[in-house]
Amino acid sequence: MQGQNQQQAYDRGITIFSPDGRLYQVEYAREAVKRGSASVGVRTPEGVVLAAERRSRSPLMERDSVEKLHKVDDHIGIASAGHVADARQLIDVARREAQVNQLRYGETIGVETLTKAVTDHIQQYTQTGGARPFGVALLVGGVENGEPRLFETDPSGTPYEWKAIAIGGNREEIQSHLEDNYSEDLGLEGGIDLAIEALATPVDDEGFPAEGLAISTIDAETGSYRNLETDEIADRLTELDLLTEGDDE
Amino acid sequence: MQGQNQQQAYDRGITIFSPDGRLYQVEYAREAVKRGSASVGVRTPEGVVLAAERRSRSPLMERDSVEKLHKVDDHIGIASAGHVADARQLIDVARREAQVNQLRYGETIGVETLTKAVTDHIQQYTQTGGARPFGVALLVGGVENGEPRLFETDPSGTPYEWKAIAIGGNREEIQSHLEDNYSEDLGLEGGIDLAIEALATPVDDEGFPAEGLAISTIDAETGSYRNLETDEIADRLTELDLLTEGDDE
Amino acid sequence: MQGQNQQQAYDRGITIFSPDGRLYQVEYAREAVKRGSASVGVRTPEGVVLAAERRSRSPLMERDSVEKLHKVDDHIGIASAGHVADARQLIDVARREAQVNQLRYGETIGVETLTKAVTDHIQQYTQTGGARPFGVALLVGGVENGEPRLFETDPSGTPYEWKAIAIGGNREEIQSHLEDNYSEDLGLEGGIDLAIEALATPVDDEGFPAEGLAISTIDAETGSYRNLETDEIADRLTELDLLTEGDDE
Amino acid sequence: MQGQNQQQAYDRGITIFSPDGRLYQVEYAREAVKRGSASVGVRTPEGVVLAAERRSRSPLMERDSVEKLHKVDDHIGIASAGHVADARQLIDVARREAQVNQLRYGETIGVETLTKAVTDHIQQYTQTGGARPFGVALLVGGVENGEPRLFETDPSGTPYEWKAIAIGGNREEIQSHLEDNYSEDLGLEGGIDLAIEALATPVDDEGFPAEGLAISTIDAETGSYRNLETDEIADRLTELDLLTEGDDE
Amino acid sequence: MQGQNQQQAYDRGITIFSPDGRLYQVEYAREAVKRGSASVGVRTPEGVVLAAERRSRSPLMERDSVEKLHKVDDHIGIASAGHVADARQLIDVARREAQVNQLRYGETIGVETLTKAVTDHIQQYTQTGGARPFGVALLVGGVENGEPRLFETDPSGTPYEWKAIAIGGNREEIQSHLEDNYSEDLGLEGGIDLAIEALATPVDDEGFPAEGLAISTIDAETGSYRNLETDEIADRLTELDLLTEGDDE
Amino acid sequence: MQGQNQQQAYDRGITIFSPDGRLYQVEYAREAVKRGSASVGVRTPEGVVLAAERRSRSPLMERDSVEKLHKVDDHIGIASAGHVADARQLIDVARREAQVNQLRYGETIGVETLTKAVTDHIQQYTQTGGARPFGVALLVGGVENGEPRLFETDPSGTPYEWKAIAIGGNREEIQSHLEDNYSEDLGLEGGIDLAIEALATPVDDEGFPAEGLAISTIDAETGSYRNLETDEIADRLTELDLLTEGDDE
Amino acid sequence: MQGQNQQQAYDRGITIFSPDGRLYQVEYAREAVKRGSASVGVRTPEGVVLAAERRSRSPLMERDSVEKLHKVDDHIGIASAGHVADARQLIDVARREAQVNQLRYGETIGVETLTKAVTDHIQQYTQTGGARPFGVALLVGGVENGEPRLFETDPSGTPYEWKAIAIGGNREEIQSHLEDNYSEDLGLEGGIDLAIEALATPVDDEGFPAEGLAISTIDAETGSYRNLETDEIADRLTELDLLTEGDDE
Repeated sequence: MQGQNQQQAYDRGITIFSPDGRLYQVEYAREAVKRGSASVGVRTPEGVVLAAERRSRSPLMERDSVEKLHKVDDHIGIASAGHVADARQLIDVARREAQVNQLRYGETIGVETLTKAVTDHIQQYTQTGGARPFGVALLVGGVENGEPRLFETDPSGTPYEWKAIAIGGNREEIQSHLEDNYSEDLGLEGGIDLAIEALATPVDDEGFPAEGLAISTIDAETGSYRNLETDEIADRLTELDLLTEGDDE
Repeated sequence: MQGQNQQQAYDRGITIFSPDGRLYQVEYAREAVKRGSASVGVRTPEGVVLAAERRSRSPLMERDSVEKLHKVDDHIGIASAGHVADARQLIDVARREAQVNQLRYGETIGVETLTKAVTDHIQQYTQTGGARPFGVALLVGGVENGEPRLFETDPSGTPYEWKAIAIGGNREEIQSHLEDNYSEDLGLEGGIDLAIEALATPVDDEGFPAEGLAISTIDAETGSYRNLETDEIADRLTELDLLTEGDDE
Repeated sequence: MQGQNQQQAYDRGITIFSPDGRLYQVEYAREAVKRGSASVGVRTPEGVVLAAERRSRSPLMERDSVEKLHKVDDHIGIASAGHVADARQLIDVARREAQVNQLRYGETIGVETLTKAVTDHIQQYTQTGGARPFGVALLVGGVENGEPRLFETDPSGTPYEWKAIAIGGNREEIQSHLEDNYSEDLGLEGGIDLAIEALATPVDDEGFPAEGLAISTIDAETGSYRNLETDEIADRLTELDLLTEGDDE
Repeated sequence: MQGQNQQQAYDRGITIFSPDGRLYQVEYAREAVKRGSASVGVRTPEGVVLAAERRSRSPLMERDSVEKLHKVDDHIGIASAGHVADARQLIDVARREAQVNQLRYGETIGVETLTKAVTDHIQQYTQTGGARPFGVALLVGGVENGEPRLFETDPSGTPYEWKAIAIGGNREEIQSHLEDNYSEDLGLEGGIDLAIEALATPVDDEGFPAEGLAISTIDAETGSYRNLETDEIADRLTELDLLTEGDDE
Repeated sequence: MQGQNQQQAYDRGITIFSPDGRLYQVEYAREAVKRGSASVGVRTPEGVVLAAERRSRSPLMERDSVEKLHKVDDHIGIASAGHVADARQLIDVARREAQVNQLRYGETIGVETLTKAVTDHIQQYTQTGGARPFGVALLVGGVENGEPRLFETDPSGTPYEWKAIAIGGNREEIQSHLEDNYSEDLGLEGGIDLAIEALATPVDDEGFPAEGLAISTIDAETGSYRNLETDEIADRLTELDLLTEGDDE
Repeated sequence: MQGQNQQQAYDRGITIFSPDGRLYQVEYAREAVKRGSASVGVRTPEGVVLAAERRSRSPLMERDSVEKLHKVDDHIGIASAGHVADARQLIDVARREAQVNQLRYGETIGVETLTKAVTDHIQQYTQTGGARPFGVALLVGGVENGEPRLFETDPSGTPYEWKAIAIGGNREEIQSHLEDNYSEDLGLEGGIDLAIEALATPVDDEGFPAEGLAISTIDAETGSYRNLETDEIADRLTELDLLTEGDDE
Repeated sequence: MQGQNQQQAYDRGITIFSPDGRLYQVEYAREAVKRGSASVGVRTPEGVVLAAERRSRSPLMERDSVEKLHKVDDHIGIASAGHVADARQLIDVARREAQVNQLRYGETIGVETLTKAVTDHIQQYTQTGGARPFGVALLVGGVENGEPRLFETDPSGTPYEWKAIAIGGNREEIQSHLEDNYSEDLGLEGGIDLAIEALATPVDDEGFPAEGLAISTIDAETGSYRNLETDEIADRLTELDLLTEGDDE
């Protein structure tokens, strides 16, 4: 790593290489991801779990409007972390890709295909001038031929597949919990619990109000995306002894 | 936060990331919002209240011409804070969206749909080069299927939904008043009073002349946007013991 | 306000926000307005008065050619202050808007509508790159459904309505005179006298040669724009004891 | 006026405002005008006189090829001062305008109309990026409905009308002579003499060789542009005791 | 080589020459290649071997999704090192070239032809402004008329043919191993072993888990690209005494 | 003239004015002209002579390939000095102009018309961004209606007509010789001798090898461009006692 | 030559003139040429010889893939020195020109015509913004109407014709050998020997392995381009006592 003055030199104009071969604008965009609250994805044989913390700036804010989980197609959902407005653009790209695939080939888009269409879009904003990279990471979860898949996209436009992964603020701590507790034979229920517990690690297991979390599943059997109701989340939190009172009410 | 010299480096050309993942041009645009006088939105079961302070540069200025509240459609109004000329552009975007929706689908546009069309427009000015972000925040209030909705847009292009919210100068102080006094069972009248009292906090409850405020409501029952007459506002202010003599006459 | 070095940072390339949320290029354009000689607008029940000082660089210059007042339509005139060549561009925009309105809707354009078309044009030059803002302020005076209207546009593209207003050099001093002496029941004649006296304040009431002023009225009854003849102006100045000998003859 | 370092800041890229509201690139273009040799215009009731000094870099240069006076239409001529190649571009613009007017409306273009078409063209080069302003000033002289007219355009794109005016090097000194000696009842002959004497002031009335001056008239009666022959100029110079021997022969 | 300050001067805007004739952005892109994990290509009379190390950021990551080897056509594969998202773009270019060749000429594309199409694409990103070079090196291996071919592309867009070559991190050390142990009469099996042993040199022959390597062959006889199964790789590693336990299970 | 630091400020991006009204890029382009070897033009009643020194970088270079004289049309030739590759572009422009004129009007182009088409092209490269000025000066010689004409174009795009002129390296010294020895009644032969002698002044009349000069004439009577053979040049040089042995043989 | 700081000023953005009239980006591109290994061209009455040194980065590299000699048409070949990827672009330009000429005029392109088409292409990259110059020099050798021709192109886009010439690294030393040993009556064989000996001078006549050189001829009689086989080159080297053992085997 180099001194302050030198870094400044690479912030001008377009995304260019530094002498040690790094794309600083892309790395700064990764910092934007870390500034967002965390999202977690867990892949189990029964389906994929997407979960995200929703922070509220005020008790008068509707936490539902903090968009962290997005249904992209019947069988695919996306969780985001980082710059919210940027995430919305990528979600639009993903939805259009899904629709176009349906219209053109008469079949639903694959999870990997969709992910790579999105990462190709992201990459172009890191190479061509006149724009900045996207300051957001995504978790693309879905079911493809009955098989659950879970992908990550980062601001460089690289796709990776995961069994379980955290993005956003406190990523290292949460990922550590996932690595220590993930098991290949988790069910969907177990996946949800693991996601919640992982998200709770950075707050010293103090827990969340039910509205402080958003959770969705893509079930391997039905192949359908579903958002958990606040009640269901409250039940889970109670069971895990992680339910706190929200500042909303 | 970093020193002066470093900030300067991120002001050149286009909106790019700083080493800690922030978009300075967007944050500076937020400062532009704070430089404007405040606007307030309050959602009640009976409808949405939008209210704004209108400052006068001279007793010879027509305060009516200080545009803070805008009717966008029969059932939707927008309050703004920040750079006035920028607000006008976004209001135009909103009105066109409402018209296009009417023409294309034969039905009035939803409040959330309209808000997100506007935030997508805002986001593009934060990512693509050759332009600066919009220096304005908006409150989009309206009625959708009989249900009152209240959204905020900020210079990053992120939409949030609120029960009650302040934007613009002295936001923290006004929001604090809203949080302390908001109640879920307010009527429209109560909503108006809360909005006025909130706006009065930063001026130590010295009050306003009747022309110093603009207030409008979107009634849940009728689904119609209505600007309050100066007389009505004067009556309210008198009742709340917040009426001062205007410098206009 | 900040130091010298920092201001320089915001002058490069396009119009961008400073850390405190200001658009310096727009503020510098306001300085360009102040460098121009003053213009004044006075709204009375009988009509609108536009008046401007015309400075001469030489006794051989035709003061008539110092363009400060412009007829835009039969019922609308514009007074300008600041960068003369920029004013000409905006006058062209205004005239085209008036013609297009006549052709498209078969009726004369409203004063407010015209003003806002011009301010929208101005705003675009403050947000999109590749151009500088307009260094000029305008007073748009006219009659709309028999009612006199008087608007101001500034370099940010914000429209305001006024009873009486000064723009350009020594604005504060002249506006002060207007505020102290304006009365709602002025007639057109009284409006003209007020405008002249206001313009005379910064020169310690030494007065002007008849050719040193340009004055026009838009009469509420006839709805017509009219430039006062030099003789009429001389008569007024004599009556107000403000006539000096021009250096022209 | 500010220090060196600051001025530099406003020279980059496009024409932008300085903190005190000036367009430095335009002001520097005015300096380019001053670097050129002087041109003079004199309006008399009998017609307009255009005169210019033609400096020679070598006795082998054909002074005729130093383009300072240009016939634009039968009834309109233009004298220039400053950057010669820039002048040629504006002369082309003027000629095209004259032709288009003739073709479109079947009548010759007015002097004021032509001047303003040219200044509008000049203004655009001071506001839109990607080009520098024109480094030239013009005197547009002509006859319109039998009436002699004389206009000036400067690098900002502002048109002014004059009775008599000097542009280019030593402008102040020459203009001073014009102001002291101009009379409303000059004939064309008197106008020519005044122009020559004015141009001779900065050289301490040492005079010029006949080829050192270019003089043309637009006669009010005939409405025709005419270049004076070298013999005629020599005769005039002899009469005024201002003929020197050229270094050409 | 020059000091820090000077290098900075060549990082602005577009890819330009330094005083000593180097293209710094291209050289920095080479550093990006070195930051990636290594890939190796070995050409034998029986076919081409492509092998790559796949590093895992977490035991929960699917190493299969670390894309280092890509099938481009039935008879051509590409191994990459460096910026992953950039590699994906070039792979797309290569696949399109292969398809277009098939459609246009009705025959499979040659390995050299394909390589040069890709390097021409790379070169353009080093000469034309508005974009940065590709931060990736490729090994293009394939069979052409029964003859195995192996090419390298670097960030400058230069194609070279090799008998055996390493790209990416620790290139020198790995290449050194290849040079010392390559023999013209290696079979495919021998080529695979050589590739594995070469990749193992920088880690002091500690070895890899089976999932830590990706290996593919293009067989000269069948002319077909084939990815080795994890089992096959494990067998090889065992035989070479280079199998370690993965952190994946 | 100003200090070093300030000059640098005007070298960025596009051709802009310096505070004293100069276009530095154009003036630097004039320096490029001075770096080239000299060319000379001499106009006599019998025709125009173009002559140029051709320097050789090595005895193995074909001096004929040092392009200094170009036939543009049957009756027009151009001599250049400065950046050779730029000259080629302008020669192309000139040739196209000549052809287009022939096709469009069915007659050969005039020398002045052609010159001005070329200078208009040159001027545009000094005003519009995205390109640098041409680093070359041209001498356009030809016959028009039986009359010999000789024009100069410089990097600003200004056309001048001359009796005799030098451009390029040592211009002042050569021009001085021309001024001292030019006579209006020179014949073509005399013109050639004057051109050779002038070119020889900076080398202290040491002379040239025959291949060291290129000479062409455009004869007033025949109206035809003709390159002198090396033998003819050798004869002339011998007669003038200026023939040296070439390093070519 | 000037100091470090000043040179930096001319490296930004586009290719512009320095105060002393030089195009630094073009001169830096010349340095890129010097960084490449040398190429030599020799013209004899029997045909043209092109020869180039091919350096190998590793004994595993196929030296044949170091592209220094390129067949452009049956009767024309090009040798390059400098940035290899840039050379490939210019070779493409040359080949297209040759094809287009064949198609359009039904005859093979002339060597001079081809060279000038390439230099015109090169020049444009030195004048228009948004791209850097080509970092490569070319030797274009061929037969035209039975006559051997040999041209050089440099990064400025200037064409020169030569009897014998070296480009690339150690140019001066090699050219010196050519100047001392070239004779007009060399045959093709003699030309090949001269080229080899010249290339050997900088390495103190230590010689080359046969694969270390690439040699081709364009025979005046047959008018055909031919690459020498490695055996032929080995024979020549043996005869000249310049054969070393390659590191390839």
